[in-house]
Amino acid sequence: MTTHRLIPTRYHNVLGTFPPALTVASGDIVVTETIDANGWDKSDVKVTSGPNPMNGPIAVEGAEPGDTLKVEILDMTPIRATGWTRAALAANVVDPDFVQHLPPRDRAIWSIDRNALTTQLLDPPPWLAGLVFPLAPMIGCFGVAPALGQAISTATSAEHGGNMDYRRFGAGTTVWFPVAAPGALFFLGDCHALQGDGEIVGTGIETCFEVTVRLTVEKHTIVWPRGETAEDIFTIGNARPLDQALQHATTEMVRWLAEFHLDVTAASHLLGQAVRYDIGNVFDPAYTVACRLAKRWLPAK
Amino acid sequence: MTTHRLIPTRYHNVLGTFPPALTVASGDIVVTETIDANGWDKSDVKVTSGPNPMNGPIAVEGAEPGDTLKVEILDMTPIRATGWTRAALAANVVDPDFVQHLPPRDRAIWSIDRNALTTQLLDPPPWLAGLVFPLAPMIGCFGVAPALGQAISTATSAEHGGNMDYRRFGAGTTVWFPVAAPGALFFLGDCHALQGDGEIVGTGIETCFEVTVRLTVEKHTIVWPRGETAEDIFTIGNARPLDQALQHATTEMVRWLAEFHLDVTAASHLLGQAVRYDIGNVFDPAYTVACRLAKRWLPAK
Amino acid sequence: MTTHRLIPTRYHNVLGTFPPALTVASGDIVVTETIDANGWDKSDVKVTSGPNPMNGPIAVEGAEPGDTLKVEILDMTPIRATGWTRAALAANVVDPDFVQHLPPRDRAIWSIDRNALTTQLLDPPPWLAGLVFPLAPMIGCFGVAPALGQAISTATSAEHGGNMDYRRFGAGTTVWFPVAAPGALFFLGDCHALQGDGEIVGTGIETCFEVTVRLTVEKHTIVWPRGETAEDIFTIGNARPLDQALQHATTEMVRWLAEFHLDVTAASHLLGQAVRYDIGNVFDPAYTVACRLAKRWLPAK
Amino acid sequence: MTTHRLIPTRYHNVLGTFPPALTVASGDIVVTETIDANGWDKSDVKVTSGPNPMNGPIAVEGAEPGDTLKVEILDMTPIRATGWTRAALAANVVDPDFVQHLPPRDRAIWSIDRNALTTQLLDPPPWLAGLVFPLAPMIGCFGVAPALGQAISTATSAEHGGNMDYRRFGAGTTVWFPVAAPGALFFLGDCHALQGDGEIVGTGIETCFEVTVRLTVEKHTIVWPRGETAEDIFTIGNARPLDQALQHATTEMVRWLAEFHLDVTAASHLLGQAVRYDIGNVFDPAYTVACRLAKRWLPAK
Repeated sequence: MTTHRLIPTRYHNVLGTFPPALTVASGDIVVTETIDANGWDKSDVKVTSGPNPMNGPIAVEGAEPGDTLKVEILDMTPIRATGWTRAALAANVVDPDFVQHLPPRDRAIWSIDRNALTTQLLDPPPWLAGLVFPLAPMIGCFGVAPALGQAISTATSAEHGGNMDYRRFGAGTTVWFPVAAPGALFFLGDCHALQGDGEIVGTGIETCFEVTVRLTVEKHTIVWPRGETAEDIFTIGNARPLDQALQHATTEMVRWLAEFHLDVTAASHLLGQAVRYDIGNVFDPAYTVACRLAKRWLPAK
Repeated sequence: MTTHRLIPTRYHNVLGTFPPALTVASGDIVVTETIDANGWDKSDVKVTSGPNPMNGPIAVEGAEPGDTLKVEILDMTPIRATGWTRAALAANVVDPDFVQHLPPRDRAIWSIDRNALTTQLLDPPPWLAGLVFPLAPMIGCFGVAPALGQAISTATSAEHGGNMDYRRFGAGTTVWFPVAAPGALFFLGDCHALQGDGEIVGTGIETCFEVTVRLTVEKHTIVWPRGETAEDIFTIGNARPLDQALQHATTEMVRWLAEFHLDVTAASHLLGQAVRYDIGNVFDPAYTVACRLAKRWLPAK
Repeated sequence: MTTHRLIPTRYHNVLGTFPPALTVASGDIVVTETIDANGWDKSDVKVTSGPNPMNGPIAVEGAEPGDTLKVEILDMTPIRATGWTRAALAANVVDPDFVQHLPPRDRAIWSIDRNALTTQLLDPPPWLAGLVFPLAPMIGCFGVAPALGQAISTATSAEHGGNMDYRRFGAGTTVWFPVAAPGALFFLGDCHALQGDGEIVGTGIETCFEVTVRLTVEKHTIVWPRGETAEDIFTIGNARPLDQALQHATTEMVRWLAEFHLDVTAASHLLGQAVRYDIGNVFDPAYTVACRLAKRWLPAK
Repeated sequence: MTTHRLIPTRYHNVLGTFPPALTVASGDIVVTETIDANGWDKSDVKVTSGPNPMNGPIAVEGAEPGDTLKVEILDMTPIRATGWTRAALAANVVDPDFVQHLPPRDRAIWSIDRNALTTQLLDPPPWLAGLVFPLAPMIGCFGVAPALGQAISTATSAEHGGNMDYRRFGAGTTVWFPVAAPGALFFLGDCHALQGDGEIVGTGIETCFEVTVRLTVEKHTIVWPRGETAEDIFTIGNARPLDQALQHATTEMVRWLAEFHLDVTAASHLLGQAVRYDIGNVFDPAYTVACRLAKRWLPAK
C-alpha cells in the first residue's frame, strides 16, 4: 500500500473521462489539498473558477466499468482560517410567495479555529453574536467519470456521484461509487467546514482541506452511491424532485439488503420500522436523499 | 387544572367542525384510549372502519380562530399485545420500474411486549428471526378542525394537522396547531408502536394506546404545526411533492425564528449550518416534512 | 324532462354533504346565475365571500355512491359587463429566482362585450392597446360532494371535481363526476369569460354567467372526472406535482379505453401516438391535467 | 448560401465539444440522413448503438458562446418502410399502484407508407385493426454542445436542447438554441414518424429520415430553446418535475416578450389569458414543457 500526494496542476469543472492526474494501485492512499467552490486556495489566491473545481482525476488500476470504487475518507484537515457562505436562504426552499422577503445573496465570512475545530461568523448579526459551531468537515462534490463518455458539471449529481452536498460525507465514512470508465477516474473537491441538511443557503462553509482517502476497486456492481459510517449504512439518490431522489435511494437500499439475504418482503419489514432519510441537498440541479439504516439491525451477511 | 377521561361513543374519519365529544378548560388534561387505523380496539374488536378513526373532537374553552392550540403529549401507554403492518414497501417509494418486484400488501402481525417495551414480528422471515425493536410510540393522526368549515379525511394532512405520521410525535413532545374553528376541536388517533421515517410500508406498527395530553390555548397565530422536544424545535409542512412540504416547513421556521429576533438573514445563517430535515411520511396523499433545529443554537427569546 | 331555475339563497365555499338547495330528477335541466370568485354578483354587489362561492348543492334523484353524474354544459351566457384578473404571474409558475421580478398582484378590470362576445382590458398597458380576445366561457369550479362526508374547499380539487380551472369546461362539453354521496349533490360557480392554460395569473377573467346544465345519473363507476367535447374525450387528474395529476388522468383514460375493448397494450399503442395533455391549472393547491384523445381514433364501443 | 450533405462516419451518444463532422457558414443548408434511436439505419442495418445516436456535430462559422443558433427545419422525408415503438405505457406515467397492470415492454413494428404519408401497426390488436395515422415527422433529439465543456447523454435534455421529444419539432418549425461553445456544434437524430404528447410509451414511431435544416448564427442571447411555427411562438423548459420544466419555459417566454416591449405585467395579462402549454416528453430523465403563444396576439416587435 502506497501513499501518494496529488498536487493539482489543473482543476476540472466537470466529471468526465480526462487523462488521469495520478494513477494508483487499488488500496493506495491519496493525500490532496482541495480549493474552495469558487476556486480560491488556502492562501486566498484565486487559482481557477467555479463551479466546484475538482482535484483529479485519479485512475485506480484494475477498475473496469461494472466494478465499484470504494473510497474511505480517512482524514479531513482544515487548511484555511476562513470560509464563506451565502447569507440568504435559496429561493427554492421557501414558499414561492415568500421569496420576495429573502435578502440579497451576499457572501458572509466565517473564521475557522483550526485548534478548537470551531467556526463563527466574522461579523454576526446581533442575536447571533457568540454563536460558535463545532466543525463537521465534509466533501461536497466527489465521484467518478460517468457512463457513455459523459462529462457532467460539478454543479449537479447523478449515479456517478458529483455535487451531492451531504453532511455525512466526512472523515470516517466509506463511500462506494459505480465505475463506468476504465480506471474509475476519481475526482474530489468542494469541501465544507460545516453544512446543515439540504445546503439551503446554497453553500456550506466553503473552505480548503487536506483530504486523505484510500481507493480500492471491488469486483461487484452497484447502481447508486452507497456509504457506511460507524453507526449506519446508507444509499444515495440524486434527482428532482426529492420524491424521485428518495425512490432511487430506497430502491438501491433494497438491492443492498438482498446481499444480506433479505428479500423484498423482509427488506420492507426492516426499512418500514427502522429507515432514516436524510436530505443531502435541496439546492443543486439534482437534489440528494440518503436512505439510511442502523447497522445494528442488519443480519450477518 | 382538571384531568378528563374521554371515552368515545363514536369515531370520526374526517377532521371537521362536529359537536364536541368533550369540552375542557385551557390547561386541562385529557386521557383517552385510541383504536387502530382500521377501527380495531384493544380487545381486537372492530368497532368502526378506517381510515384512521379519531377520538374527539375535544373543544377547548376560549379557543378562537387565529389562536394556537398547544398539545403536550404527556404519555402514551400501549394497551394491546399486538400491532400490524403492511408487508410491502409502498409503490411510490421505489423506482417506477421496480414496482413490479414488490410483494403483495399482506398484513403482518407484531407482538408487543408491554413490560419490556419491545416489539417483534410474530412470524418473521428467516433472516429477521431474533429482530427485536424497542417501542417508540407516536401519534399518527391528530389535529384540529380546519378552516372554512372544511372536513378533511384522516388519510391526509394540511395546515390543521391530520395524518402526518411523523415519528417524533411521541410522549414528551409538545405540538402547536393553528386554531381555525371556535373551541379548536382537537382530534387524535392512529397511534403507532413504532415507525421508520416516511411510513414507507404505508403503516407504522398499528395498535392501541392510552394517550394523555394537556390542551392549552395560546393567543398568537401560526400557519403550520410546530413542535418541541427535549432537544429541538421543529415545524411541519404537509404537501406533495416533498419539495413543497419542505418549503412550507422552512418558511414556518423562518417565521418562528423571527420571534427570537432573527431576521431572514440571521435565520439563513443559523438554518444554513444547523437545520435538520425529517421526512414524516412519504406515503399519504400529502407528504410531511419537518424542519428541525437544536434548541442549543437558539438565542434567548 | 323539467327545466328548473335555481336562485341561490346561500353560497358554499366548500363542496360537502349539505341540504340540497334544489332536488331534480335525473335528466332534468337547471338554469342558474353564478357570482364571481370573490362573491360579487352581476350587479357588482358583494353578496358573499370567497373562495369561489358555489351555487347548490343540487340533489339528483336516484344518485347513489358508486354511480356517475353526467353534467352536460348546455349554455353559458355572460351576465355582467366586466370581469377581473390578477395583473401578475403567480410566483409558482416562474423560476424561483425570477419571483423577485414579479409585479404586485393588483386587480385588472376587463370589459365584456356581450354582443360581440369579446373582452379587452379597460386600462391596457401601451403595447397591449387594441388587444381584443374572443370570449371562451368556462366553469372554473364544479363537482359533487366528496366521499367520507368530507367538505373540501372550493380553492382546491380532487376526485370529486372542484376548482379545476380547465378551459375546456365550456358550453358543449359533457362532464362526468364520481358520485360519493346520496343525491350526488352537485355544485357549480367560479365561471371565467376566458382563461389561458394553467390559470397562471391565479384567475381567469372572473365574472358572472347564466349557466344551463342537464344532470343525469348513470349506473356505472368512475374514479376521476371524465369529459367529452365535439372532438375529444378526456380524463382529469387533480394533484401536485403535475406529474401526479398526469398519472391520475392517464390511468383513468386507460380504464375508460377498456370500455372500448382496448386492453393496456392496445391503449398504450393508441395513447402513445395520439394522446394530448392539457394543463388545466398550475396555480391551485391541487393542479389539474387533462389526458385527451380525439374521438376519431376510438373503436366502436 | 451553400447546401451541404452530411454523411456521418461516426455517431455520438452525447452532445459535447467534439471535432466537427462538418463546418458550414451561417445561413447554409445541411441535408443528412438520420438513423433510429437504437442505431439501425434505413436499410435495417445496426450501424451503432443507442441511446439516440446523433449526426454531427456541425460547426457554424462565427458562432460564439452567448450567441444563438437558429435552426430552420426545412424538410423531413421518411426513408424507411418501418418504424418501431414500445408496446407499453412507461411506468412513470400511470399511478404507482397501476404499474403492476402494465404489459411487458415489447417492441411493436409499424409500417410506413411513404406515398400516402401514413403509418399503421403491422400486427395490430383486434380493436385497433384498421387504425391508420397520418405521419407527423419530428426530431426527437437535437441541440448544441452544452456549457462548461460538458458532454451530456442524448437520453436527456437541458438548456442546450437534447432529447426533448416534442412533437412540434417538425418541418416548418424554426428553433433557437443558446450557443455555449465556439461553432455552436449542432447535433441531430432520433427522428419520429409520429408521437403523441409526452412520449408516454417511451418512444415515438422510431425510424429514419432525410432531414434538411438551415443553420444561422444570431448575435443575441437566450437561456432556453425557443421555437416558432406558422401559428405560434414557444419556449422550452427541460427538467423534472413537470412543474419546474414549466417554470423554465414560462420564465423564458417572459424574457422573450420583453423583446416585444411587454413588461412583466403586460406579459402576465397576455399569457394569463392566451398561453398554451404542451408536454413534450414526460418519459426522459428531464421532462419537456413548451410554453406556447399564438403569434396573432403579439404586438409588433
